[in-house]
This record gives sequence, C-alpha cells and structure tokens, in this order.
Amino acid sequence: MPLRERLHEIVFEADTRAGRAFDVGLLVLILGSVVAIALESVPDLGAEHRAGLRALEWVFTALFTLEYAVRLYCVRNPFAYARSFFGVIDLLAILPAYLGLVFVDTHSLGIVRVLRLVRVFRVLKLVQFLGEASVLRAALRRSLHKIIVFLLAVICMVIVLGTAMYVVEGSASGFDSIPRGIYWAIVTLTTVGYGDIAPKTVAGQALASFVMLLGYGILAVPTGIVSAELVRQPPRTSTQHCPHCAAEGHADDAIFCRRCGKSM
Amino acid sequence: MPLRERLHEIVFEADTRAGRAFDVGLLVLILGSVVAIALESVPDLGAEHRAGLRALEWVFTALFTLEYAVRLYCVRNPFAYARSFFGVIDLLAILPAYLGLVFVDTHSLGIVRVLRLVRVFRVLKLVQFLGEASVLRAALRRSLHKIIVFLLAVICMVIVLGTAMYVVEGSASGFDSIPRGIYWAIVTLTTVGYGDIAPKTVAGQALASFVMLLGYGILAVPTGIVSAELVRQPPRTSTQHCPHCAAEGHADDAIFCRRCGKSM
Amino acid sequence: MPLRERLHEIVFEADTRAGRAFDVGLLVLILGSVVAIALESVPDLGAEHRAGLRALEWVFTALFTLEYAVRLYCVRNPFAYARSFFGVIDLLAILPAYLGLVFVDTHSLGIVRVLRLVRVFRVLKLVQFLGEASVLRAALRRSLHKIIVFLLAVICMVIVLGTAMYVVEGSASGFDSIPRGIYWAIVTLTTVGYGDIAPKTVAGQALASFVMLLGYGILAVPTGIVSAELVRQPPRTSTQHCPHCAAEGHADDAIFCRRCGKSM
Amino acid sequence: MPLRERLHEIVFEADTRAGRAFDVGLLVLILGSVVAIALESVPDLGAEHRAGLRALEWVFTALFTLEYAVRLYCVRNPFAYARSFFGVIDLLAILPAYLGLVFVDTHSLGIVRVLRLVRVFRVLKLVQFLGEASVLRAALRRSLHKIIVFLLAVICMVIVLGTAMYVVEGSASGFDSIPRGIYWAIVTLTTVGYGDIAPKTVAGQALASFVMLLGYGILAVPTGIVSAELVRQPPRTSTQHCPHCAAEGHADDAIFCRRCGKSM
Repeated sequence: MPLRERLHEIVFEADTRAGRAFDVGLLVLILGSVVAIALESVPDLGAEHRAGLRALEWVFTALFTLEYAVRLYCVRNPFAYARSFFGVIDLLAILPAYLGLVFVDTHSLGIVRVLRLVRVFRVLKLVQFLGEASVLRAALRRSLHKIIVFLLAVICMVIVLGTAMYVVEGSASGFDSIPRGIYWAIVTLTTVGYGDIAPKTVAGQALASFVMLLGYGILAVPTGIVSAELVRQPPRTSTQHCPHCAAEGHADDAIFCRRCGKSM
Repeated sequence: MPLRERLHEIVFEADTRAGRAFDVGLLVLILGSVVAIALESVPDLGAEHRAGLRALEWVFTALFTLEYAVRLYCVRNPFAYARSFFGVIDLLAILPAYLGLVFVDTHSLGIVRVLRLVRVFRVLKLVQFLGEASVLRAALRRSLHKIIVFLLAVICMVIVLGTAMYVVEGSASGFDSIPRGIYWAIVTLTTVGYGDIAPKTVAGQALASFVMLLGYGILAVPTGIVSAELVRQPPRTSTQHCPHCAAEGHADDAIFCRRCGKSM
Repeated sequence: MPLRERLHEIVFEADTRAGRAFDVGLLVLILGSVVAIALESVPDLGAEHRAGLRALEWVFTALFTLEYAVRLYCVRNPFAYARSFFGVIDLLAILPAYLGLVFVDTHSLGIVRVLRLVRVFRVLKLVQFLGEASVLRAALRRSLHKIIVFLLAVICMVIVLGTAMYVVEGSASGFDSIPRGIYWAIVTLTTVGYGDIAPKTVAGQALASFVMLLGYGILAVPTGIVSAELVRQPPRTSTQHCPHCAAEGHADDAIFCRRCGKSM
Repeated sequence: MPLRERLHEIVFEADTRAGRAFDVGLLVLILGSVVAIALESVPDLGAEHRAGLRALEWVFTALFTLEYAVRLYCVRNPFAYARSFFGVIDLLAILPAYLGLVFVDTHSLGIVRVLRLVRVFRVLKLVQFLGEASVLRAALRRSLHKIIVFLLAVICMVIVLGTAMYVVEGSASGFDSIPRGIYWAIVTLTTVGYGDIAPKTVAGQALASFVMLLGYGILAVPTGIVSAELVRQPPRTSTQHCPHCAAEGHADDAIFCRRCGKSM
C-alpha cells in the first residue's frame, strides 16, 4: 500500500489500530490545547506560567498545522476536504495563532480552537462500534420534529408569560422590559431559577407559581418523546426469515421456526 | 372560482401554496409586531428609535386591520367568526392601537397583541402534516386527566408543606405568611429554586431537604404519564391488508384475517 | 331507608348524587377554611379584615363540628371511626378552635386543620371513575420498592458528597458543618439550586460540577421507573380467548381468531 | 459447624437470620458513627456535648476494631480480604481514630469513616431479594454506555458554551475565566441555577436562554435511555418450558419449540 493511502487510512479512518491510536492521540492534543487556553484565561496567573502556556500553545499549533498539511496531502480531493465542515474547523483551529502575530486580541481568537472539540464526536465512532451512539442518534433524529414543535410551543408560552409578568410586576422587581420578562420566563419554565430576577408582589408570585407548575408539567413532554423513540427501537429479535414459511420475529438463538417447526 | 372563495382559501386555509404563503407571511408580521412591542418596552432606548418603532407599529396595525376586514368579507358567516376565539383575538390585536389615540396607556394595551401569537399554532398545521404535532397532541389529550390528578395532589402537598415551613422557619427567614410558605414550597418542589426565600434554621433545612427529595421523586410522575402515552401511541400492527376484505390492523404474525377469517 | 342509613350514604359514600354533592360541598368548605387561615397569617392585614376572617373561621368550625357529630351518629361503629385515620383528622380539624378559647397560640393550632385537605383525595374518587387515578396509584405502588432503593442510594451519595464539600470548601463559603454540606448536596443533586450556599474555590466548583452532572444523570432513574411501570400497564387488547384454539391477544374488534381462522 | 465457619456465615453473609441481624446492627452502628462525626462538625456546640460525642466515637471505633479483627479471623484468606475493596475501607474506618492520638487534625481524618457507608449497599442485598435493586442495577448497567456517550456530548457542549459566555459577558458579571464560564454552563444546563454567576448583558441573557432551552430539551435523553431499558427489562416471553428439550424463552404464541422443533 503506497504511503498516501496508508496515511489516509491512519488520519481519516478509525478502523485500523494505527487509525484509532491517531484519533485518540489527536483527542488528547485537542483536550490539552483546550485546557491550555482555558487556563490562560484565569486572571490570577503568574507571568512565568502564562509564558509557559503560551509556548505550549505554539507547540499545539505546530502539531495541528502539520496534521492539516498531512490531511490535505493524503486526501483524494483536497478542495472538497478544505471546504467541508471538518476542513473549515481544522483551518480555524490553526489560523488564530498565526493571525495573533499580526493582530493583537489573541484572546477571542483562541476560543475558535475550542470548536475543534467537535472532533471528539468523530473519535466517538470507537464507542459507536458498541452500537450505542448510533442508537441514540437515530432516536434523537426521529424525535427531532416533535421536539421542534414542542420548543416552538414553549417559546410562544414564554413570550406571553414573560410579557404578563412584566405588566404584573413592573420594573421595581427587575422586570424592567418585556425581553427581560421573557428571559425570566425561560429561567423559570426550564426550572433553572437563578433568582437574579424574582417576583416580589403577591400577584407576581401567584403568576410565577403557575409558570413553575406549568414547567413542571410540560417538562414531561420532551422526555416522553425521547423515551418513546428509544423504547420503539427495533426489537432485539433476529432479522432471519424461516426458509420454509417465511415467518419473522424469531429469537436470536432460534434453530427451528416457531411457526412451521422446520429447521432454519 | 369567485374572488370571495379564492380569498377564503388563501386567508383561512393552509392547504394551497398561496394559503401557506399567506400564513407564513402573517406569522412573520406577528413576530415583527411582537418584537417591536418588546423592544419599545426597553427603558434605555433613544427617542428616535422609539419614534421609529411607534411608526412601525402603525404599519403593523394597518396591515392587521386590512386582514381583519378581508376575513370578515370572505367568511361565509361573519358574525360567527367575529365571536369565535380567533375572531376575538384578531379584533383585540388591532383595538389597542386605535384606543391608544383616545386613552393614554398604550403600554399595557399593546401587550394584548401578543396573544395573537397563538395563531402560530395555526400555522403549525404545516408541521402537522408531518404527523408529529397531532401525535403529540393526542398523547397530551389522553394524559390530561392523569396530569390533572397529579397536579391536584401536588397542590395539596404544597399547601401542607408550605404551612409546615411557615411554622418551622417563621418570618425571620422570609417565611412571613402561609401564602409565602406555599410559594416557597412550589419553588422548591418544582426544583426551580430561586433562593429569594430559603430556610436558615437546621429544622427548616431538614424539612426543605425532605421537600426536595420528594420533588425529585415525584417529578417522575408527569414524565412517566406522557412517556407511557407516547410509547403506546402507534400500535405495532403490520401494514398488511387482508386480500379478501381489505381489513387493516392485523398483528404481525397473523395467519388468518381477524375480520373475515380467510387465509392471508 | 331509615334516616341513619340515608345520612351514612350521603356523608360517607360518594356513589349517589347527594353523596357527591356533600363531598364537593365539604371540599369547598375545607378550601375556604384553609384560605381563611392562610390569609389570616399575612402580616399587613387590616384589623377589621382579621376580625372578619376570625368570624368566618368560627363558622367553618361550627360546620365541621356539626359534620363530625353527624358522622359519629350515622356510622355503625363510632369508636372505630373515631380512632381511624380520617376520624382523628376530623377531630383535629375542630379541636384547635375550641382549645384556642383556653390557650393563646391559635396560630400554630389552626395549621392542623390544613391536614384535613387530605380529604381532597377522597373526593378524587369522583375522578377515579375515569380510571386515571387508580392506574396512577397502581403504577406508583408497584414502583415504590424501586424508588425506595433509589432514594437510599441518593441519601448515601449525598452524605459522602456533602462531607467532601465541607472538607474542600470550609466554612468561608458557608459550608460550616457536615450537615450543612449535606443540605447543599441535596439542594444541588435535586437540581433545586437555591444559591444560598455555593462553592467559591476552584476545587469546590469542580466537585460541584461533578455533583450536578451526577444529579443530571441519575434524575433519569425515578422517571424511568415510573415510566416503565405506566407503560407496562395492562395492554389494551381484549381478554377474549378463541373458543376453538384458545389463542389469546386478539385485537378488541377481532371477529375471527388470528390463529385458527374460526369465528369467535 | 465450627466457630470460625459460623462466624463467617454471620459476619460475611446475609442469608441466615443471624447474618441479617448482624448486618442491620452494623448499619445502625455506621449510621450512628456518621451522625456523631457530622454533629461534631457543627460549630456552635457546647463543650460537654463535644466531649460526649468524642467518647461515643471511641466506642464506635472499638466496636469497628473488634469487627475488623473478627473478619480477619474467620475469613479463609485474610490477606485477600485485607487487600479487597471492603477490607481497605474497613481498615480506613478505624485508622483515623488511632492516628488521631499521634497527629492532631482528627477532623479531616474522621471523614474517611463516612466511606464505610458504602456498606449500606451490601445490606441492601436484603432488599434485593425483592428483585427490585437487581432489576434497577441491570437496567443501569445496560444503559451505562449510552449515558457515557451522552455525558461526553454534554461536556463538549458545556466547554463550547461556557467559553462563548466568557467572551460575551466578560469579567464584569463574574465570568472572569473560561473555567468559570464552564462552571456556569454546567450549573445552567443541568437546570441547577445557583444564581451566583448570572448573565447581565442582553447578549448574555439571550445566550443563557438558548443554553436553558437546550438543557431542557436534552434532559430528556438520559431519562429516555433509562426508561427504555427499564421498559425492555422483562422480555414478555412466556414462562413455558419445551416439554422435549426444556428450552425457555419462547414467544407467547409459539406453537413449536424454537430449539428442537417439536410441537409444544
């Protein structure tokens, strides 16, 4: 197998041992890079630590640049890759560091690299072999439409309830505009409940109680949707047909057809 | 087809392309109008922006007035429409602006227009074609009785627990009346947890811990109700038709038609 | 039918129209009484309103006393009733008012009457006819053991995590004792999140993040338990057996057996 | 039966009446010990109470030491036990008290004993006889993979969202580093919502609203996973054994054995 194909197998696929090792190594690098960026943002950090983290970031950038070059080299259609979702993210992951040499605000640019964490999902293909991630994804895909309908209904409720709260409470309790009332309604309906804006009048607390009980009741809906999809998942029977009577739905370990009694 | 009927098909129905376009356009207008009202309520807004939003609101009002007139014109029974749920909301959506010319507090009146967002649900009929919204609605309708029973039980619990907390904590921690104790119990049992009123004594925190664990446990009930209904939804019957009587809904492994008894 | 038996049917049963009317009337009286007690606890209440509520409370007490006397009269075994759960609650509901004439703190005594709200559940028998409450109760009864096991596990976790947090954070952030740490762990694991005690150190926030993700993950367990029980509810197929081959599991509207094809 | 074997049956097993009594007694001792340690941590505690608790702790330590000695004596392979999970915890439970004689900070050492509460799970074997705990554990074990995949996805989201919030809000609202932003994202996505860090700008509140609705939607996933596993639990196969080959696990309506093909 020529080098280019062997590299392709390692860099783009996760079926071989080397490919899996590469993906895991990449995952570690991405995590390390993200931790370095996160640590650098901590305000009370000594100057020498900050310098070390900066150096480390350059190492990560060099490795990611090398990886990007290898990907461009070994892929059959480099332009298609460069314009694909992962190609753009791979480029965005290394650009900020180089742009940081020209411009100044490396802070906000470094964050773009975090997006590369999405690649974690690709490495999750390892777990997918267990069939779990794909089952989960299939159930979520099938429940997507129902959840969108539900979220639209929630957004309508939240606008009406937030406006009602703005009228009832007024700006004295922090409800100083309709958007803020809607923000409060979302905080309450989702049962997050920061408490930064909370009703103070009796009428407001009564309305808030209603919103909470409503949120408690409708919280059931998205859960029910996903549960139902996961339950409905293909039953674990074999897909085998009886060669004699074509009966289906046999157990995985069936030797004889449960309908005509002939050997399968 | 005469103009009146064609208008009726466009304005009241969503089956034709024109009807769907009208509904989507109306949805955009309603959303724009709601955003305008919401933005106008923001306190730190420049005078020229406020004037622009006010002008925009008049445009929306004019369009909604035109739409209301068209609806009255093309519907077969205008009086029935005017007294129906949507007819009243359509009128309430344009009245505040005209009333605002006579009276002063346009603020609280403008909010009534938000109610028109309910029309969003009508446009959702588009999504309903995917069968999702109707499945969801059917499951919710069937679980309504169980959820009402559950909410009644929750309200009883909340009154008893709120009163107990009022006795245990007293007014020093903010529990200065039984209604306030009940408000706290709702905030806690629904796991919202603002923190505006929180127990400070050991006995109060012990009681609160009990309420939280209780809320954690019974949160399962509404979810379970809706999940069960959604799971039960489509009976997993085969899609097979009986070749003799065309009856549907046979079990997956049926050998004979359950309606006419002939072999399938 | 003699008076005593007729009274018994009205007061103790909810099958006849009179009995149902009595129960609904009693429910209204209890709710009114509870609202009166709750309102009386509001601190900023005018003296004349307080006097009116006090008078109203005496009316409620008189009616409940009359009801208690009627119950004792018409029941076959008055001693058994007086010592039963509802008998004790009925007595406790009227005692505080009379004791209030001798002692002073009517406040804490009046609260006992709130317990009478449990009678609401009895009136719910009306709803039970719809079969909903009984289905719900059966599912909860069957999942009780699993939920107890789950709550025991949660209590163990909460003690270990609360103690760990007490060690990690110390009294500077409000974690000034192990019980308070446990209280915090309950507040966090149940996703209530008051915010009255919150971690301030990095280590504490990392531990808190772990507790939250744990709570998020295990919240699924009680919900799953109840959902599973409600789903497992008797399938809605008919209980009919085929008279020829005794096959079961026929659809509700089956006319011919789906196994042997003979008329049912 | 010799003493050593009889002791083994009592101390290590829970099948006999004596063994169960020993386990329950041990559970009471552990709980008492944990309560004593927890109480001792309360700051405003009289000196004489603290002395009493200290004495009580020595009694518990003596009893646990005796128990540890008995366990070492009656087990067949003392070294294997001493190095096992429970053996290490049993040793750790008594060491702190003796080490406290030499070193000073008994506080942090006493906490280690709390770990012994894990033994509660062993006593739960009693409940397991009801089949509930094992059903629960089996469902959790089977959904573990899916929940890990889900938690990985949540952690990715939380890093991206927390970083975005750090950029949007800045240190003025308390988002003074990326780790703190991630902490906020976890607090919000899990719907805990302390409110110690909350967005103050309009853009931040809009992003926070998105995070909350996202958390509300994906909260459904772990619940759905566990629900689905619990529903799938007992395969509704018949309890029928094949009269020829004694195979089990036949479908309810099987006519022929799926293993040996003979008529059932």
